Amino acid sequence: MRGIAYLSVVVVALAGVLVYMARASGHVDGEADPVFGITIPAGYRDWRLISVAHEEGNLNDLRALLGNDVAIKAYREGKLPFPDGAIIARLAWSYVPSEENNKVFGRAQSFVAGSATNVQFMVKDSRKYAATGGWGFAQFKDGKPADAALLKTCFPCHEPVKARDFVFTHYAP
Amino acid sequence: MRGIAYLSVVVVALAGVLVYMARASGHVDGEADPVFGITIPAGYRDWRLISVAHEEGNLNDLRALLGNDVAIKAYREGKLPFPDGAIIARLAWSYVPSEENNKVFGRAQSFVAGSATNVQFMVKDSRKYAATGGWGFAQFKDGKPADAALLKTCFPCHEPVKARDFVFTHYAP
Repeated sequence: MRGIAYLSVVVVALAGVLVYMARASGHVDGEADPVFGITIPAGYRDWRLISVAHEEGNLNDLRALLGNDVAIKAYREGKLPFPDGAIIARLAWSYVPSEENNKVFGRAQSFVAGSATNVQFMVKDSRKYAATGGWGFAQFKDGKPADAALLKTCFPCHEPVKARDFVFTHYAP
Repeated sequence: MRGIAYLSVVVVALAGVLVYMARASGHVDGEADPVFGITIPAGYRDWRLISVAHEEGNLNDLRALLGNDVAIKAYREGKLPFPDGAIIARLAWSYVPSEENNKVFGRAQSFVAGSATNVQFMVKDSRKYAATGGWGFAQFKDGKPADAALLKTCFPCHEPVKARDFVFTHYAP
C-alpha cells in the first residue's frame, strides 16, 4: 500500500511538472473549435492593436481587434489578401457606464470595458480553409469553443467584404 | 560653382542619412510638451492593449489605452504605484457609424474608429514630476503638443483616483 501511495505522489508531481512546462512553453491548453480545429492562439493578448469598435443591440460590447505579427504587417503595408499565418483576434467586453469617469466629466458620457464576453479568431490558411475564403473562424467563451452551428454562420456574414479578403475591420492610424 | 554644387549634394545626402539614422534608432522627431517636456514616445503604436472605452459628449470618440512594457507588467501584477518608466498612451478616434457593418447585422448598431483625434501620454517619473503625483502629462494632435493651459488641467482631473496612482483605466482581461 505504501508503494502505491508513493507512486501516486510521483505521478501527480510529474503531471504538475508537465502542465507547468506546457504553460511555460506558451502552449495554451483547451478544446479546439469543432468546425475549423482552431485552439486559442498562445499569447494573443500581447498582440498589437488593429482597431476598436462598439456594437449596440444584443452584443452591447466594446471590442478591440488585435493582430499577430503577420496580420499587422499586412495591414500596415495594405497587402491583400492576407498571407497565410495571419491571425486576427477580436476581444470583446460588456459595455459598462463608468460612474467614476462621469463624476470627473460632470455628465454621463463615459463607457468602459466590463467583463470579457467572448473572443473570436480568424486564422488565414488558404489551403486548409479554401472553402471559406482561406479563413478559419473560431469563438471561445471562458476558454470553451462555440458550437458548430454558430461557427457555420461566420463565413456567410464575412462574404460581403470579399474585396477586403473577408475582413471588416480597417486599421486605425 | 561646380564645387559648391557638389558640396550641396553631399550636404543634402548627409542630412538624408542622418534623418534615416534618427528614424531607424527609434527617435521620434517632434516638439516637446510645454509643461512636462514630453515628446511622443517612439513605437507607442506597437504597445500592448490595456483597455478600450467610448466617450460621448464633446469628445465623441472611441479610445484605446496602450502601455509600454513597464506599465503592462505593473497592470498585470496589480502593482501600485506604477514604477518609474511606466508610460500609458491614450489613442482616440472619432466615433463613426459603420454602414457596411450595419448592413450585415441588419440594423444600425455598429460604431467604428474613424480618423485619429489626438493622443495622450502619462509618463511616470516620481522625482521629475513629484508635483503632479509622479506623472507627466502630454497631448498631441497631428504631432503638435497641446498648449500649457490645457496640460495644467490634466492632474486636477486625475486627482480623484489618487488611490489607483491617478490612473482611471482598469486593465481589461
